[in-house]
Amino acid sequence: MRFVSFSRSEKSSLGVREGNRVRILGDESLESLLGRGADLQAYGKAQPGQEEVSLDGLTLLPPLARPPKIICVGLNFADHTAESNYQQPDYPTLFFRVATSLIAHGAPMIRPRVSDSEGLDFEGEIAVVLGKGGRHINKVDALSHVAGYSVFNDGSVREYQFKTPQWTVGKNFDGTGAFGPELVTADELPPGVKGLRLETRLNGQVVQSASTDQMVFDVATLISIISEAITLEAGDVIVSGTPSGIGWARNPKLLMKAGDVCEVTVEGIGTLRNVIADEAAD
Amino acid sequence: MRFVSFSRSEKSSLGVREGNRVRILGDESLESLLGRGADLQAYGKAQPGQEEVSLDGLTLLPPLARPPKIICVGLNFADHTAESNYQQPDYPTLFFRVATSLIAHGAPMIRPRVSDSEGLDFEGEIAVVLGKGGRHINKVDALSHVAGYSVFNDGSVREYQFKTPQWTVGKNFDGTGAFGPELVTADELPPGVKGLRLETRLNGQVVQSASTDQMVFDVATLISIISEAITLEAGDVIVSGTPSGIGWARNPKLLMKAGDVCEVTVEGIGTLRNVIADEAAD
Repeated sequence: MRFVSFSRSEKSSLGVREGNRVRILGDESLESLLGRGADLQAYGKAQPGQEEVSLDGLTLLPPLARPPKIICVGLNFADHTAESNYQQPDYPTLFFRVATSLIAHGAPMIRPRVSDSEGLDFEGEIAVVLGKGGRHINKVDALSHVAGYSVFNDGSVREYQFKTPQWTVGKNFDGTGAFGPELVTADELPPGVKGLRLETRLNGQVVQSASTDQMVFDVATLISIISEAITLEAGDVIVSGTPSGIGWARNPKLLMKAGDVCEVTVEGIGTLRNVIADEAAD
Repeated sequence: MRFVSFSRSEKSSLGVREGNRVRILGDESLESLLGRGADLQAYGKAQPGQEEVSLDGLTLLPPLARPPKIICVGLNFADHTAESNYQQPDYPTLFFRVATSLIAHGAPMIRPRVSDSEGLDFEGEIAVVLGKGGRHINKVDALSHVAGYSVFNDGSVREYQFKTPQWTVGKNFDGTGAFGPELVTADELPPGVKGLRLETRLNGQVVQSASTDQMVFDVATLISIISEAITLEAGDVIVSGTPSGIGWARNPKLLMKAGDVCEVTVEGIGTLRNVIADEAAD
């Protein structure tokens, strides 16, 4: 089942997408539903009399606008670790994003005005949305904690990422974390999204292409290891890492400027598309 | 005015502390009050008929249990940067904490069972709580965005902090972020908490002692610089950095074990006290 969050009459609404039609469920958010332990499939099933609208012209929102946590995994594809001049750690490299950085499919991805580098960098990734929390989750049970998956573009302001030993600020500028277009429930995908193709295109040119099988730490392992340290909560999002091909590691660099179109496609999940825009002046 | 959050009949309550008495305001949280732009002083003023209880025996909670963001600043005292073997960056070193890591004054600070080092490390700090958000906040206006201050112990699982290039996991174990005992409104303190003594004691022995004047980036500068990248929100907490003296940098190391008592005192704000405990077995 495919859930879309969208804006309607200045309110957030949730719907189920089937083809080009969206069946409106109401204004309860996915984070609220997951937080109260609702069964998404049951909730999303057709009720008589629900209103349907066309997907065309809907203003999408991130599937979850305010997840309890957004846990990003760096250095999770060996070829990306190598291009970034890091040694591959034998533990997941974690950092957080905050909700103020999120944008939806179709929203402009913002190159901030304080940035003095040539442009914003792309990082196509898979977002894992948890349906059930926990601590010390066994790897064998971990996938039962996943509600579904979406696509993420972990837009990076590289020179800020490397101003200090911590990448956080370069990963958290407003308008840089693209998330969507929709939440696809786990039952529609291979367990742990194994064997899926992840591809990023900049102005139509393929710039990243990998199989999820190349992840150093797979989805079940990430959930299990993270939960040894941190209580995971329903609605938490794990952004699972990007493969090689980022613009900053190229010679010459290939960074995103105003008007560029960046698309991230994950087989079976969908395509997240954003146009780059410069931050407005004061 | 001094606000305490505490647990009463299994509910969170908010009160104003005056000496040893707590005047109960109700069950609306500080994050909710700040989020809706309430004037804390006006809200906290005595209303006829409010119930008063003794502070003794109250189970305190973190002043804010779920701030929108918890932004930590590393390497913000030059002598701590030196003892940590880093070059002093000319930009604030930012990382996030998540709410699942927070504990209150008086709650056990947890040494996790997966840790294989000798103990947990301490980091005494000042927590800045924002009353008003914004983006691109001018330094001259920045202090008008502060609602108040509290004390923080940024408990660190050092070997996890250094397993990868990012410190995040070592700073986010459940039960390691002590926050309290209370929120002191900014009007009770020098502007930007300038000139205050920050002291950490382990089992009564002074292990950190510094003046807030030694901060590389002061409170106004932090708010201004962070807001160039990230929209700040009312209720956000900035944990503003620790001075030298941490246990990991000593020879031999001085780490906290079960039964140890750690206290962080900030002049004019208060003392945050926690006893260390080992994480319970399965």
